[in-house]
Amino acid sequence: MTTQKLSAVLDHIEADSDNSLARLFTLLRIKSISADPAHAKDCKAAADHLAHDLASLGFAAEVLPTGGHPAVVAKGNGGAPSGRPHVLFYGHYDVQPVDPVELWHRPPFEPAVVDHADGRKIIVARGAEDDKGQLMTFVEACRAWHKVTGSLPLDVTFLIEGEEEVGSKHLVAFLENHKKDLAADFALVCDTSMWDPDTPAITTALRGLVYDEVRITAANRDLHSGLFGGAAQNPIRVLTRILGGLHDDNGCVTLPGFYDGVKDLPPDILAQWKALAFTPETFLKPIGLSVPAGESGRLMIEQVFSRPTCDINGIVGGYTGEGSKTVIPSQASAKVSFRLVEGQDPAKIRAAFRAYVTERLPKDCTADFIDHSGAPAVSLDWQMKPLLAAKRALSEEWGREAQLIGSGGSIPVVGDFKRTLGLDTVLVGFGLDDDNIHSPNEKYDLKSFQKGIRSWARILAALADMPKA
Amino acid sequence: MTTQKLSAVLDHIEADSDNSLARLFTLLRIKSISADPAHAKDCKAAADHLAHDLASLGFAAEVLPTGGHPAVVAKGNGGAPSGRPHVLFYGHYDVQPVDPVELWHRPPFEPAVVDHADGRKIIVARGAEDDKGQLMTFVEACRAWHKVTGSLPLDVTFLIEGEEEVGSKHLVAFLENHKKDLAADFALVCDTSMWDPDTPAITTALRGLVYDEVRITAANRDLHSGLFGGAAQNPIRVLTRILGGLHDDNGCVTLPGFYDGVKDLPPDILAQWKALAFTPETFLKPIGLSVPAGESGRLMIEQVFSRPTCDINGIVGGYTGEGSKTVIPSQASAKVSFRLVEGQDPAKIRAAFRAYVTERLPKDCTADFIDHSGAPAVSLDWQMKPLLAAKRALSEEWGREAQLIGSGGSIPVVGDFKRTLGLDTVLVGFGLDDDNIHSPNEKYDLKSFQKGIRSWARILAALADMPKA
Repeated sequence: MTTQKLSAVLDHIEADSDNSLARLFTLLRIKSISADPAHAKDCKAAADHLAHDLASLGFAAEVLPTGGHPAVVAKGNGGAPSGRPHVLFYGHYDVQPVDPVELWHRPPFEPAVVDHADGRKIIVARGAEDDKGQLMTFVEACRAWHKVTGSLPLDVTFLIEGEEEVGSKHLVAFLENHKKDLAADFALVCDTSMWDPDTPAITTALRGLVYDEVRITAANRDLHSGLFGGAAQNPIRVLTRILGGLHDDNGCVTLPGFYDGVKDLPPDILAQWKALAFTPETFLKPIGLSVPAGESGRLMIEQVFSRPTCDINGIVGGYTGEGSKTVIPSQASAKVSFRLVEGQDPAKIRAAFRAYVTERLPKDCTADFIDHSGAPAVSLDWQMKPLLAAKRALSEEWGREAQLIGSGGSIPVVGDFKRTLGLDTVLVGFGLDDDNIHSPNEKYDLKSFQKGIRSWARILAALADMPKA
Repeated sequence: MTTQKLSAVLDHIEADSDNSLARLFTLLRIKSISADPAHAKDCKAAADHLAHDLASLGFAAEVLPTGGHPAVVAKGNGGAPSGRPHVLFYGHYDVQPVDPVELWHRPPFEPAVVDHADGRKIIVARGAEDDKGQLMTFVEACRAWHKVTGSLPLDVTFLIEGEEEVGSKHLVAFLENHKKDLAADFALVCDTSMWDPDTPAITTALRGLVYDEVRITAANRDLHSGLFGGAAQNPIRVLTRILGGLHDDNGCVTLPGFYDGVKDLPPDILAQWKALAFTPETFLKPIGLSVPAGESGRLMIEQVFSRPTCDINGIVGGYTGEGSKTVIPSQASAKVSFRLVEGQDPAKIRAAFRAYVTERLPKDCTADFIDHSGAPAVSLDWQMKPLLAAKRALSEEWGREAQLIGSGGSIPVVGDFKRTLGLDTVLVGFGLDDDNIHSPNEKYDLKSFQKGIRSWARILAALADMPKA
């Protein structure tokens, strides 16, 4: 029966396409940058907007406080026969900062559909993909089911948070405090990528993350480098010397114990990965690079999916304006993150980094640290029923077998759901490698958005028809 | 005769003290930041103001174009008996940027006299010392002579430029084009420091400067560190690795050939310097440091006066705002300067730095460079007559023997005057180590300003009475 209704739902999605896009644009216009306290009101506005929208689809929607930006929880009863599964859908309404804003070709919060150089239609705006565009594919699929059938094919609870881009600091406490409201059989997350523009994918392995900030202080004030240079310690010199030693000549991370517990890939997986067409030509050339920069002796696909890494995400000290200033600054700081794989403990990695810095500080220098976030790596069961049902639905929509893939990125909520709510997660998303997420000119293919909505409509049907475990 | 008039001039300076301060404040209120194009109008305003002021003292004053901010040239005829020397006075009206502005205790362009913690009266503002306060000591001395005697005791030409803080890029061409207007017997510059708050000094050795900016580019756009981290080259990692290698474990600069031509101090000078009370306790403790950071095995006084150095004056790349962003930036850049001593060629040092960076670039990275300025070190003749005359006058005013000292800073105009105009320079200034020049809360001791004016009044008399060489 669900399958018969699905056809009508898919027809409605096609007919309602322009309205879906207009609703996404409304959300994209809200400047919900979670990292910037100046945009706290915009974050609240995004939450209110989503709660209002979900209420219009029959959901019991609330905007709930956290220790930071609020979360939206919305419960929709499918009026479905008992025995059908209950899913918890997770997305986030917050977006990354937009700097350097001068590199955007359009204002980042004025979304538009434009023609990509290769002819694709793309939606351009901050959050177009991550995660407003992705999250709205699921919302629009629910809307279509509700419009056509008057209800959802199964029970759906929404959890939409506003602090994903700043480390979801208050999420675990929120999950603990709302266990009953968030009870479900499994979770769905739309925040990942396709294998390629024509091939859908379900992500089953995610790297973890440790993100730390270090600030080194030397003199009690900025100094003139002519008068003091040579005698006064320079914190930029100290910082570059320490950070410059984080990798060895082979691209390996030098923190003592960094690779403890990291396993090599099983030979069969390694053989499969070797066979994939994942080459510098396909992966690096579009971003202007040609040579993998990670550990020598590892496949590039290992470097991004299954090996831990270290990146300096930001550095600043001294005079950075136009022209020159002969200053020895008092302070210099850097943001450093580590992508973790199975077997690595975030707390140990953070401690190892801080010890590494502290042990290398010369006399007269001090280091302060800020913990921005941390989460272990996640491996999901490739055989769980909801995942297989979603895989079938995706393959039908795209006319190609959906791939089960790893991802270099981190989605800590997956581990949090398992630990606090006992839920497994199915990760389906429609992002592409060239979406410029976290960068200027973020985009989402119009095809990703439109077929993403259709994909979720199919997945909801497939999950509804799946026998409850 | 000059000596008799001097007494009246000094009396007038005392009586006119409040007005002198008010005139300095007027100049300090002009935001003449030469590094920032947004302040070009303010630079022009400072030049106009000074020309107008000098004209009121009987000078034939003009604001003349350069390739950048304008220069003031003002010629004052002393109506002095022939045979008296003609001096060229040099100062600069431009000031350093004020960032980080949040560390200032008062708005940087609202000058005030405040009480220092130790009881000294200090003038606080950007430029209070460097160089508006210093330059006005000479202007006020001329004003007093003009007021009391109706003329100056000798011929004075002013050259006040507006690009000293950005490398004086257009100065040499300007000197070449105005040789005739700037003809004199020797030059006076007020842009240096005292030995200590009670002991005046004449600076006879200045380090040179090479200031370069390097920008490293990797990918053609900013990347998400989860998706690309491990495979994509990170320009901050490259930059820190290269800059972190500029010093070895002994604090020596590692550029090949950097120390070529650098001579050790003559044993008698080294013995004199060892005897000076120039210790970490006196020099570093006030700025919160305790251990000299330069070449091991060298006296601290060598490290700042007679040894070449390398400092990173600024670095920036990636996300530097509040919170976290998992970005691998496309670019990272740094401002790097070298203080040079006699025997080092600025062009060779710049070339060595650029070669050092370029040779260490990994595949897929490029480096661009910006030349901000360069000047060789300068050594002046300790025995020249105007210097000895100035030394006598300073010693009389302060009641202590004026010291002949070196300076770690660079005043390239000294070399430029010698090469283009054939002039030797006498460097007299009233700055102190704790003046915070180029830093937040720049100050000039009220005593430096007041006794500086008196010092110049005496020096003008001493130079007028000096037999022309």
